[in-house]
Amino acid sequence: MTPDWLAVDWGTSHLRVWLMGPGGTVLDQRRSDRGMGNLARGQFEPALLALVEDALPAGGPLPVIVCGMAGSRQGWAEAPYATVPCAPPSITAAVAVETADPRLTVFIVPGIKQVAPPDVMRGEETQIAGFLADTPGFDGVLCLPGTHTKWAHISAGEVVSFRTFMTGEVFALLEQASVLRHSVTGGDWVDAAFAAAVEDAISRPATVAAELFSIRAGALLEGTGAGASRARLSGLLIGLELAGARPYWLGQDIRVVGAGGIAGAYHAALSAQGASVATVAGEGMALRGLRAAHDRLREAAQ
Amino acid sequence: MTPDWLAVDWGTSHLRVWLMGPGGTVLDQRRSDRGMGNLARGQFEPALLALVEDALPAGGPLPVIVCGMAGSRQGWAEAPYATVPCAPPSITAAVAVETADPRLTVFIVPGIKQVAPPDVMRGEETQIAGFLADTPGFDGVLCLPGTHTKWAHISAGEVVSFRTFMTGEVFALLEQASVLRHSVTGGDWVDAAFAAAVEDAISRPATVAAELFSIRAGALLEGTGAGASRARLSGLLIGLELAGARPYWLGQDIRVVGAGGIAGAYHAALSAQGASVATVAGEGMALRGLRAAHDRLREAAQ
Repeated sequence: MTPDWLAVDWGTSHLRVWLMGPGGTVLDQRRSDRGMGNLARGQFEPALLALVEDALPAGGPLPVIVCGMAGSRQGWAEAPYATVPCAPPSITAAVAVETADPRLTVFIVPGIKQVAPPDVMRGEETQIAGFLADTPGFDGVLCLPGTHTKWAHISAGEVVSFRTFMTGEVFALLEQASVLRHSVTGGDWVDAAFAAAVEDAISRPATVAAELFSIRAGALLEGTGAGASRARLSGLLIGLELAGARPYWLGQDIRVVGAGGIAGAYHAALSAQGASVATVAGEGMALRGLRAAHDRLREAAQ
Repeated sequence: MTPDWLAVDWGTSHLRVWLMGPGGTVLDQRRSDRGMGNLARGQFEPALLALVEDALPAGGPLPVIVCGMAGSRQGWAEAPYATVPCAPPSITAAVAVETADPRLTVFIVPGIKQVAPPDVMRGEETQIAGFLADTPGFDGVLCLPGTHTKWAHISAGEVVSFRTFMTGEVFALLEQASVLRHSVTGGDWVDAAFAAAVEDAISRPATVAAELFSIRAGALLEGTGAGASRARLSGLLIGLELAGARPYWLGQDIRVVGAGGIAGAYHAALSAQGASVATVAGEGMALRGLRAAHDRLREAAQ
C-alpha cells in the first residue's frame, strides 16, 4: 500500500517520517539520526529519499509536509518565522521547496519568533497546532519539556507569548560532562530529593549556583546516593526554571505536553506549587499538527 | 645545582613542580598534564620521577611537599580533610607517603571540608596559606576564581567558612558544548554587555535560566555579535554566583586572588556592586603556601 502523503518531523538530531494513508491513518513510520545538525543543504533530499524511496508511488508527486529545524537558515530551505501573537503557522504559511526528484512536493512549515524578549521555536509550533486541533478552545499555558523546554501562553487559538529554557541541555551537560558526573550516575531516582530541591530553588533561586557543587560535596562527605543526587540536580534546575517562568504558570491552567520521566518531573514540581496542571501525551502531537496542516492543504486543493 | 626540596601542586588535570634552592629560591619549574584525573594510585610516583629524576641529588632523601587533588581518596594517598573553622592545614597535618624510590620523602598537605553546607577544597587551602603568609592579619573574604570558584571567609588566621561555585565549569560547557556555542565563539569581549548581564542576574536571579536561550535568539533575530554574547553569558553566570555569594561579599573586605580575564571579570562585577575589592596575583600563591609549609618542616627538624 503506497502512502497518500508524508509527514516529517525534522529536528536538529533526528529525522522522523510517517507514511500516511487515507483518513489520516499511519501506514508506517521510519526514523534516522540524519538530523539537520549534520546535513548540508544538498543532503536533505537524499536523506529523506534514503528513508522512504521504496514506498514512493509510481504516479504523481507525493505531498511531503515538514516541520522543525529543516526550515532554519542552515536547513533544507529557510521558512521565515511567523511573529507572535499568531496562530501556529500552518500549510498556508509553508515554504515550497524545489526538489530534484519529481516524485516529491515538499512544504516546510515555519517556526515562530518573538521580538521581546527575543525567542524562537521550530517544531514546537506544530505540536501546539496538534494540541489545538484536539482542544480548540484552550486558554492557558502549554509547557513542552525537552532539551529546550518551551512555555507558551495560548489564547483564542493563538500563541500570545513564549519563552525557552535550556534546562534539559544544562542538565545533560552537568550529568555527563561535569565534575558532578561522579556523583549522579546510577542509583534510583528519589522523589523526595527532587521535591526538596525544587522548593529550595524556587524559594531562593540565587542559591542554585552554590547548591550545584554541594551535590558533589554531599556525595563525598555524607555518602549521598547517586539517585538522590541526580534527582536533586534535576530539581535545582527545574526549580530555577519555574522561578523564572512564574509569570507563565502562576494562576494559569497548565498542560504539560510530553511523556515519561521529564514530563512527570515538571508535573510533580508544578503540582507541589499548587498549580492547576494536567499532562497530555506529547507522543504524536507533532504528527497531529502535521495532519491538521495536510487537512488544510486538501481543503485548499478542492 | 641540585634542589633542597620539591614543591608540588598536583591538581585534577595538571602536575606542577618547583625545584627549590636555598632561601626559598626557585631553581627550575616543570609541568606536565599528568593530573590526578588520569592516574591510578601506582602511577603517581613514576609520574613525578619522570619529571624530576635528572635533578635528584645523589645524597639523602629529598623532601617533597605536595598540595592538591593528589591527596584525595582517588589520589596518591588520602590526606583526610581538616574541618572549618581551622587554619589552612600545613606540614604538621600532612600525610607522609611511602615511596619505592628512597631518594624521596613525600608529604601531602590535606584539604579542608565544611560540614554544613557540605563543601570541600583541595589545593586552594595552600593558596590561602600563601596569601596569609604575606598578609597575616587579614580579616575579610578571599575569592579564588577558577573552574570551581571558592569564596572563603578568613578571620584570625583561620578559614571560618567557604563555598564553591561551578561557574567556570558551567561557562566552559555552555560555551563549548551547548547550542550557545554558535553564538558566543569569536569576536571581542564587550564590557558593557558583561556589566548589564551581571546586573540582570543579581537583581533577578530567577530569570537567568530564560536569559541563557535569549542569547541564542538575540544572535539569530538581532544579530548580536559573538563577543557581546560571550560577555553576556559570563555576566549572567557570574551575576547568579554573586547573588548566591552575597553573604560572603556584602560589606566585606574582598581580595580576588587570580589573574587575567577571569579575575578581572570578578573584580569588575564586585566593583559595580559597590563592594570593597582588590585583586592580588594568584600566580605563585600555591608556591608561597608550599614554601610556608617547608619553613615549618625545617623549624620542626631543628
